[in-house]
Amino acid sequence: MDIGAQSLEYHKKFKGKIAIKSKSMIETKADLSLAYTPGVAHVCTEIAKNPDLAYETTLKSNSVAVVSNGSRVLGLGNIGALASIPVMEGKAMLFKEFGNVDAYPICLDLKDEEEIIRTVKALAPVFGGINLEDIENPKCYSIEKRLIEELDIPVMHDDQHGTAVITLAGVQNALKLASKKIETAKIVVMGAGAAGSAISLLLARAGCKQVLCSDRSGVLSTARKDLDEHKLLVANATNSKQDMSFEKACVGADVLIGASAPGSIKQENIRSMNSKPIVFALANPTPEISHADAISAGAFIYASGRSDLPNQINNVLAFPGIFRGALDVRAKKITENMKIAAANAISKSISEKELTQNNIIPAPFDKSVHFNVALAVAKAAQKDKVARVHVPEKELEALIKKNIEKK
Amino acid sequence: MDIGAQSLEYHKKFKGKIAIKSKSMIETKADLSLAYTPGVAHVCTEIAKNPDLAYETTLKSNSVAVVSNGSRVLGLGNIGALASIPVMEGKAMLFKEFGNVDAYPICLDLKDEEEIIRTVKALAPVFGGINLEDIENPKCYSIEKRLIEELDIPVMHDDQHGTAVITLAGVQNALKLASKKIETAKIVVMGAGAAGSAISLLLARAGCKQVLCSDRSGVLSTARKDLDEHKLLVANATNSKQDMSFEKACVGADVLIGASAPGSIKQENIRSMNSKPIVFALANPTPEISHADAISAGAFIYASGRSDLPNQINNVLAFPGIFRGALDVRAKKITENMKIAAANAISKSISEKELTQNNIIPAPFDKSVHFNVALAVAKAAQKDKVARVHVPEKELEALIKKNIEKK
Repeated sequence: MDIGAQSLEYHKKFKGKIAIKSKSMIETKADLSLAYTPGVAHVCTEIAKNPDLAYETTLKSNSVAVVSNGSRVLGLGNIGALASIPVMEGKAMLFKEFGNVDAYPICLDLKDEEEIIRTVKALAPVFGGINLEDIENPKCYSIEKRLIEELDIPVMHDDQHGTAVITLAGVQNALKLASKKIETAKIVVMGAGAAGSAISLLLARAGCKQVLCSDRSGVLSTARKDLDEHKLLVANATNSKQDMSFEKACVGADVLIGASAPGSIKQENIRSMNSKPIVFALANPTPEISHADAISAGAFIYASGRSDLPNQINNVLAFPGIFRGALDVRAKKITENMKIAAANAISKSISEKELTQNNIIPAPFDKSVHFNVALAVAKAAQKDKVARVHVPEKELEALIKKNIEKK
Repeated sequence: MDIGAQSLEYHKKFKGKIAIKSKSMIETKADLSLAYTPGVAHVCTEIAKNPDLAYETTLKSNSVAVVSNGSRVLGLGNIGALASIPVMEGKAMLFKEFGNVDAYPICLDLKDEEEIIRTVKALAPVFGGINLEDIENPKCYSIEKRLIEELDIPVMHDDQHGTAVITLAGVQNALKLASKKIETAKIVVMGAGAAGSAISLLLARAGCKQVLCSDRSGVLSTARKDLDEHKLLVANATNSKQDMSFEKACVGADVLIGASAPGSIKQENIRSMNSKPIVFALANPTPEISHADAISAGAFIYASGRSDLPNQINNVLAFPGIFRGALDVRAKKITENMKIAAANAISKSISEKELTQNNIIPAPFDKSVHFNVALAVAKAAQKDKVARVHVPEKELEALIKKNIEKK
């Protein structure tokens, strides 16, 4: 039986992968009057007076909405809200498993950008964070931007930033093995969609001075007249001022990252790179270039999204810890520094001794990674003054250790 | 410490009364590939082809949204979405505890009726039912009506119908003790808001030929020119054709139900009733007339919403079983027959032997009540042809028994 058929059996067996759990029992009238009426009325009036109290008394303290309209699900395209549930529910499961975050799938039967924004804003009160997922490009950019501006809880489109964080972490470790520095490395990103653009922006933000992000027409540069708003932003942030083909960009590059489609990286692109070429082929399930072809073209390190190959670049290393850390200091936003802190924490989760060409990124089953990410993100949030509470460093560690543990 | 302060302590201790639970563990790459990518893609494409498969493979099979905009919360009025969370979360807890239904609080920061309708429709895909809660009158009527018409999952405003179901159940048992029949009884309802109007409509539907529903200006009758759409509907359904004061309506009544405000039932109203007067004073926490005053005026049976008095009329006896039954046959709607079936199941949960003037309604902690309600509701849904699946009677019992059991 192939994995799809097996997964269908699995889903039919469980009829839903997540459930609700009461944190305390309701067995007597006394329980009822504490958890519900009449006692609860006092809690409501206190929150009405002091909104921050919602973090201390309700599920908002630990809840994230996994929001999608099913318009760009995995490699399946626009399959709609209902058919997207298994993915969003799976994501909620991963949030719980790795970050002990209570995430809930919100699958919206909506296409219009303004309606999606309005709806997410309307349902935000009960959540401590919003994870946007599988929303088509370019709507994903404007929806995320507006929600970040208009809400006072962290909003993150994971297809962009989760991917960027974990890619940065992988690149950091790969460069270390190649004895190169990110500041002086030349990095080419093939693909300027949600993932490719976010990867490019975060690499630049993390100190890389030569990021070249390319779409099918070549490198995004301020000289090009055909760029939409988002691609122009990338061109400006990566400081690309002249037209250049993707092929030419690859010449002498230290790192080549595919966030595009199968076949879009050729062996000659790798052959034209600098010594010890680092290749990340992130198209999933079929990478831009196969492991075998990349290695035979001289790749020093190869990473992909596949679980059956070494160096799996998997968002699940990032989002549970990022939201865990953000929730625990009641962050209002996820800043660039918080993302970079997350990437640093992931790359440092592999010790010098363990770091090899086939082991540049930790496995998600190593729980300490998520703790490290959460702690780094929470610290960065406090430093960036987007945290609603300031927890002294020692207490923060204990707090996150306690909160990340599944009961 | 009073109950409010105790409840605040309780809420601070738990920081949220519900959490998410994964139904299976994610401990290996194999687990990941079944629950998430790549296996999950096949489940998504199968649902896209056959939408009903969502009931067999996702949380939709067991999920209910508890939707409020916080515009009429308990006796607190319009406290808004955020401050309403403790109530909606409490409700979700009760859904879990008594019906093993996975309910999630959806607290909407919205006032406009059309926006509430649009938002609930947008987020409906992931839910198997919608429980509307604490939405101000008269918006609650039109929002519920439109959602029932436009969605293919059950929608119920609990302040109306949950209250009506449990009141009907109590009235049935009270009349039995008074050796009276609902068909020939005269029942006066004081209050024509969400609860009062729904109680009146359901009593009429259940066979009572003399229901008189009164607001502050007197009985709702088709002769009155000041009635809004909803009150006119009640006047028509209860067949009230002439003007009459509340006081006059009480004369010779068998049952008097207050769904109004403290002080709106007087001892003289009870004294003017028929023999063995039955009084339900449902205003909460302060009833329309106190237990002591009602008894001293001759009340044969007194019921209220209070947990510290006998005969507590509490919605928690109804909604968990109603949605349990509706979910288990994948009902598209909650029909009048389903509500009456629920009321019958509740009243019959007290045996003839146990039935006394101070014990007309079971306690919610008796789990068999919720099972009885669920089974009766599921059967009625199948009979009314609003069920998506038809389960033979014997299997239905086993199915509900299994599903109502907390794991």
